[in-house]
Amino acid sequence: MSRAIFDTAEYDRRLDRTKARLHEEDLDAIVVADPANMNYLTGYDGWSFYVHQAVIVTADRDEPVWVGREMDADGARATTILSADSIRSYSDDHVHSPYDLHPMDYVAGVLEELDVDDGHIGLEMDASYFTAKSYTRLQENLPEAEFSDATLLVNWVRVKKSEQELAYMREAARISENAMQAGIDAIEEGVPEYEAAAAIYDALITGTDEFGGDYPSIVPLMPSGDHTGTPHLTWTDRPFEDGDPVIIELSGCRHRYHSPLARTTFVGDPPAELERTADIVTEGIEAALDAAEPGVTCEAVEKAWRETIAQYDIEKEDRIGYSMGLGYPPDWGEHTASIRPGDETVLEEDMTFHMIPGIWTEDIGMEISETFHVTSSGAETLANFPRQLFTA
Amino acid sequence: MSRAIFDTAEYDRRLDRTKARLHEEDLDAIVVADPANMNYLTGYDGWSFYVHQAVIVTADRDEPVWVGREMDADGARATTILSADSIRSYSDDHVHSPYDLHPMDYVAGVLEELDVDDGHIGLEMDASYFTAKSYTRLQENLPEAEFSDATLLVNWVRVKKSEQELAYMREAARISENAMQAGIDAIEEGVPEYEAAAAIYDALITGTDEFGGDYPSIVPLMPSGDHTGTPHLTWTDRPFEDGDPVIIELSGCRHRYHSPLARTTFVGDPPAELERTADIVTEGIEAALDAAEPGVTCEAVEKAWRETIAQYDIEKEDRIGYSMGLGYPPDWGEHTASIRPGDETVLEEDMTFHMIPGIWTEDIGMEISETFHVTSSGAETLANFPRQLFTA
Repeated sequence: MSRAIFDTAEYDRRLDRTKARLHEEDLDAIVVADPANMNYLTGYDGWSFYVHQAVIVTADRDEPVWVGREMDADGARATTILSADSIRSYSDDHVHSPYDLHPMDYVAGVLEELDVDDGHIGLEMDASYFTAKSYTRLQENLPEAEFSDATLLVNWVRVKKSEQELAYMREAARISENAMQAGIDAIEEGVPEYEAAAAIYDALITGTDEFGGDYPSIVPLMPSGDHTGTPHLTWTDRPFEDGDPVIIELSGCRHRYHSPLARTTFVGDPPAELERTADIVTEGIEAALDAAEPGVTCEAVEKAWRETIAQYDIEKEDRIGYSMGLGYPPDWGEHTASIRPGDETVLEEDMTFHMIPGIWTEDIGMEISETFHVTSSGAETLANFPRQLFTA
Repeated sequence: MSRAIFDTAEYDRRLDRTKARLHEEDLDAIVVADPANMNYLTGYDGWSFYVHQAVIVTADRDEPVWVGREMDADGARATTILSADSIRSYSDDHVHSPYDLHPMDYVAGVLEELDVDDGHIGLEMDASYFTAKSYTRLQENLPEAEFSDATLLVNWVRVKKSEQELAYMREAARISENAMQAGIDAIEEGVPEYEAAAAIYDALITGTDEFGGDYPSIVPLMPSGDHTGTPHLTWTDRPFEDGDPVIIELSGCRHRYHSPLARTTFVGDPPAELERTADIVTEGIEAALDAAEPGVTCEAVEKAWRETIAQYDIEKEDRIGYSMGLGYPPDWGEHTASIRPGDETVLEEDMTFHMIPGIWTEDIGMEISETFHVTSSGAETLANFPRQLFTA
């Protein structure tokens, strides 16, 4: 009853690359707790990351091992490429337990069974759901193990996308275009913010005529009015007012792959300065996209943006983008390469980035973003949506 | 420009109760990383929990201190009741940093400044987002500190709700009713699962005629067909088929307060056995609701359910509910009291629970849930929605 969305050969390649990295780091195993990495290695897809779970890859075993809650084991059987013996689950008395039981006690038992309990084990020390307690319980249970921080090991394996991954990201881009149009259409004077958010959500999940959308890893963000400088506040009951700038940042999602997109709209007649800022942001992002190609560093792409806007006496030194693709809440970013000063990551074919530069003047913010794929000769944006200031 | 949604006196009471708990645990400070606890103590509300952030409460200081990313400080000024001096932020080079900088290095500096760096500090060791790395960085930065696990300290302070919190939960219940009706109406043979999910989402965010809805902490879950035994899988492109049972679990959300609701619907003519199971689940949940009142233990409420279904030769010993209210992804549960065997928590007036029992027979699952408020004399359900098996 598997509904895995890649063929077995693709999972084999992912596992081989992960094992090669284990070998390079002299690791006997890695305990993967990031839900995106768990999905990447096994196909597992469920909203179960509010309890502890993990995928274990060892240097020797043919398959990864999924470990989770008993009631989620059928979900693992349904969504992963794993055989029955590679799906292990702990009983429900481990969940928010009053009995001093912790799911990582069970994970430690699996590591023992896999004969790596006295080995060198990589942990995703800074992954959102790998808690401090998860770490101390593994330490207590496995006194012979040597632990190392392997936070981004699998994330870096994810950086270059396959043809099938790119196909899903392009499908996500179709959804992003529809959702952005729905948002721009919904925003007008007197309409409460939540109604625009509802229209965007409806489009994100309805998707296209051919396929539906998944839930995105980040909710649609719509800072407006005085709040364009507060990028992570969510919608309220406030009605849009004449004179409001509104930044819309959203992403369609297809089989957990994203293609984020941001645009700015203005309720009423925009001030000339905002129009001018829109032109500068557009010129800047186009310069940065032109600069992106295999062999160029991330910091060189940022520099193309920065030098373009400097012609207009705007100085700004920021992270303007990041590698992304597969994701679960709270984030669609991969936490690997960033388009910012000091990041010397060299672009390679089939990497994918969300580039989201912005300029704020006198409390009015303006953002235009693109998700792009590094091709053999340059950068191809996944969505096709006009780069301009919109008005409502 | 604060948009805090409770009056200052309510935040003062929350802080007083938290400080009383610090005193009982002999703690000089607590570092709160759970976004729901951060909101509870300060009002902070933003989708910024994908980077490290915290609220620090010390035994001596009048106000909590919010610590987050520089670009989120304006969001903290907009949503919290804190004065300017209580909002501290770290620069962007701490974010997914290639420079071996970590946000907890900055948090450690704030703890020093607050003069608790050689004190006894409580940490939410098992909270999502308080990573293993957050812990080791605090340890490295503060060698004189003594750390203790204070994971549920604030969660337990949240257990009894105020009048205003209950008012928001009742508003969330209105949204849940509308969204459940939208889901039941949308599900029919041939309709893809994602279209039902989109209808539910639209209703969740559109809310009611008077107010809109927030994003819920868990996406609408809709296990159907063969998958009613996989409660945490999300929707796909599959069209509903004649003969599909569909469990809908969702929650409206208002100012981050939830009121979850689950119902089961059947595509086509339900088998007699499922009708019978629905009657048993209904009788069981009603018995459990009748049992709930101040002075009764959580395990006694579960026992009322279990003994009712045992009359029909169904044996099942499970967690059937949990305390909840305020929440952020990945969970709306509080992780405190559970309605399950062994939980001796005594119900008190103004606690709130989601009770979600279910019965599975021959791979067909049936769930009916209610969110309830413990009143002075019993249990009042927040939503008003028929308890029955629906058909499409």
